[in-house]
Amino acid sequence: MVDVSGKGVTVRTARAQARVRVGPGVRRAIDEATLGKGDAFATAQIAGIMAAKQTGALIPLAHPLPLAHVDVRFAWQDDETLVVEASARTSAQTGVEMEAMVAVSIAALTLYDMLKAIDKGIVIEHVRLLEKTGGKSGHWIAPA
Amino acid sequence: MVDVSGKGVTVRTARAQARVRVGPGVRRAIDEATLGKGDAFATAQIAGIMAAKQTGALIPLAHPLPLAHVDVRFAWQDDETLVVEASARTSAQTGVEMEAMVAVSIAALTLYDMLKAIDKGIVIEHVRLLEKTGGKSGHWIAPA
Amino acid sequence: MVDVSGKGVTVRTARAQARVRVGPGVRRAIDEATLGKGDAFATAQIAGIMAAKQTGALIPLAHPLPLAHVDVRFAWQDDETLVVEASARTSAQTGVEMEAMVAVSIAALTLYDMLKAIDKGIVIEHVRLLEKTGGKSGHWIAPA
Amino acid sequence: MVDVSGKGVTVRTARAQARVRVGPGVRRAIDEATLGKGDAFATAQIAGIMAAKQTGALIPLAHPLPLAHVDVRFAWQDDETLVVEASARTSAQTGVEMEAMVAVSIAALTLYDMLKAIDKGIVIEHVRLLEKTGGKSGHWIAPA
Amino acid sequence: MVDVSGKGVTVRTARAQARVRVGPGVRRAIDEATLGKGDAFATAQIAGIMAAKQTGALIPLAHPLPLAHVDVRFAWQDDETLVVEASARTSAQTGVEMEAMVAVSIAALTLYDMLKAIDKGIVIEHVRLLEKTGGKSGHWIAPA
Amino acid sequence: MVDVSGKGVTVRTARAQARVRVGPGVRRAIDEATLGKGDAFATAQIAGIMAAKQTGALIPLAHPLPLAHVDVRFAWQDDETLVVEASARTSAQTGVEMEAMVAVSIAALTLYDMLKAIDKGIVIEHVRLLEKTGGKSGHWIAPA
Repeated sequence: MVDVSGKGVTVRTARAQARVRVGPGVRRAIDEATLGKGDAFATAQIAGIMAAKQTGALIPLAHPLPLAHVDVRFAWQDDETLVVEASARTSAQTGVEMEAMVAVSIAALTLYDMLKAIDKGIVIEHVRLLEKTGGKSGHWIAPA
Repeated sequence: MVDVSGKGVTVRTARAQARVRVGPGVRRAIDEATLGKGDAFATAQIAGIMAAKQTGALIPLAHPLPLAHVDVRFAWQDDETLVVEASARTSAQTGVEMEAMVAVSIAALTLYDMLKAIDKGIVIEHVRLLEKTGGKSGHWIAPA
Repeated sequence: MVDVSGKGVTVRTARAQARVRVGPGVRRAIDEATLGKGDAFATAQIAGIMAAKQTGALIPLAHPLPLAHVDVRFAWQDDETLVVEASARTSAQTGVEMEAMVAVSIAALTLYDMLKAIDKGIVIEHVRLLEKTGGKSGHWIAPA
Repeated sequence: MVDVSGKGVTVRTARAQARVRVGPGVRRAIDEATLGKGDAFATAQIAGIMAAKQTGALIPLAHPLPLAHVDVRFAWQDDETLVVEASARTSAQTGVEMEAMVAVSIAALTLYDMLKAIDKGIVIEHVRLLEKTGGKSGHWIAPA
Repeated sequence: MVDVSGKGVTVRTARAQARVRVGPGVRRAIDEATLGKGDAFATAQIAGIMAAKQTGALIPLAHPLPLAHVDVRFAWQDDETLVVEASARTSAQTGVEMEAMVAVSIAALTLYDMLKAIDKGIVIEHVRLLEKTGGKSGHWIAPA
Repeated sequence: MVDVSGKGVTVRTARAQARVRVGPGVRRAIDEATLGKGDAFATAQIAGIMAAKQTGALIPLAHPLPLAHVDVRFAWQDDETLVVEASARTSAQTGVEMEAMVAVSIAALTLYDMLKAIDKGIVIEHVRLLEKTGGKSGHWIAPA
């Protein structure tokens, strides 16, 4: 989504990451779009963005909040490790850690759904928060 | 949910697992219910069950299907490793791998949400399918 | 919804009721459509029908099921007592008691929402199951 | 949910209540957790909280709003009368009466769902607003 | 919904329109309520209003926002042309064009659903934005 | 979604179409992906598919049903006319006309959302059913 956080307003941001470990041949299937299910990354990106907007409905004690921005990106770390990263931003009174965590999780699960016919053994590893800014607890960065 | 899969009907089942790696002190906070947010496991269990029923709405290319049964369970592997396991069952024409995967993921994210005030560095490790039965691809068990 | 339960198939039905106790003047406001919010009964009926279809998403342990039919009706018992009644039907493997109960509850709450500017003290009394048919537990009728 | 209403900001609050009349034996089944469905109160509490966040989607003319806080509590008035109470709070421009009313209704319906195998004749009595504060119509308390 | 946009706050508004082209006899069926499905306009109006509130969930890159007001109206342009018009308003940071466009579209689709037993060839023509105010791009009016 | 309609089972299908009339320059913006919002067609396709699965929640009197298949495709009729077509299939007891109509409508609205910064005057023309098969009313084809 286009960023609509107002200038001069306190914003809160969060970034989260998932690593998806795939077997041999999966990367080629994605690159060659031989999945028969369209562009896997575009689909997973949209799924992650839409799920982030449903965070308040999915996580029982999370506050529903108006997201100013959310995005999901993909990059290959190596031929068998795909990195999914999401960023979220709001001007609301509560943090957006959960929105970023939900976005990477659902994006990774969507990839799993499209790839499971090739490899059911794909593992979603290391779903975690990378960084957050704003709010009472201030700036937080994940330990290396 | 109570199991309503009809007898004599072909059923499909799936089991999935997530491992949640927590820092020291988190297990005690859960055990002593010092979270100030009620029973963490009960909340995460309900969140996982409810999300499983929304799988068709969350995963773009997943088929919506009537779940006959879904459940989520928790067990400590050691003091810093919590295992979340979900099982799902249906009599419908498509597999329930995604329902089980969504259930463990949202249950684990719900725990993260309730624990992040104590430890933002909690990592959801190893979200993966353990087993599936029924359907054209038959019985599948995750490699050890 | 038009009834699509197949002939010859085992169907399950349920009827539920809510009684809404209103203060003086409320009945006239509804009859004269002086609410400024359109037809209160049409709105409440639609709300009840739509909520019944969301029963599996609202009630954690309820099974999502394809409703073959659901409807909501209203009748004045006396000038200060409005009766809301819902009926539901399915060919699925589980009962539809909850669908009927959710339908009357949300229909009654929708009326409360439209009437609360006139009378915040309106009470929704006696939400209860009237009757169910089909299923393992057979025919059940509420005691008089 | 943790309360995030900003200090110094005008807040609106509401409290609602439902009374659930159960037959003999039901209280013991809940206390002894012999339901086979986990902790009934924890499940009903989560259901009520999650439904409150969906109020704008359930009640046609209700405004969607960011809830700052919502909670649901249970207490036995006597052996056959369970009291469900919900409180809600927001900093938004509209009242939260409907959020509190939806929370108690769905919490009570969730209890009914878990108890109906024991007693289908359970009645949800007296769903009503107890109190509201803030907003143009000011402080309102239900007549005794 | 009752308008709750605060006075003195910058508001954004939008109006959208759909034209529904029906065959002979359809207008009479609506006027005489011979549809067997209740009041078609009331049902379509509620559907449009409720869908507008779900815009952020339906349109992937649309921002979820708290609507201050939304309404849907109907008028016959001639015996075979029904005009559906929606207006939306918010005090949020983003425009409400999509909310108005979604409202007229779902209202028109709801009419199609209720009328398709009479005439499957009904066409929804000319779904378009009529006007928007507020926001960075200022006032915009559709060309005649 | 992959087609899961069972062989030998009566299936119902539907195809619907929308025509989107765009101004000069819009086609190039889509082709060159200069929208700054990713692949417009992939996003609109996913939005249409996901909305089709929500048809029962959006259209008040539509039956919720398990879709066996739904897809959305795009083609330029000429430089200013984009054709959106959706197909849907089910083995359930009711038709899927509404699923196909919702899919094309939400896909077209999603394109409008991504293109409105370039051209607010885009018109969604001619949302209509092209064909349906199966069911009591049999095969129906739109008149030319």
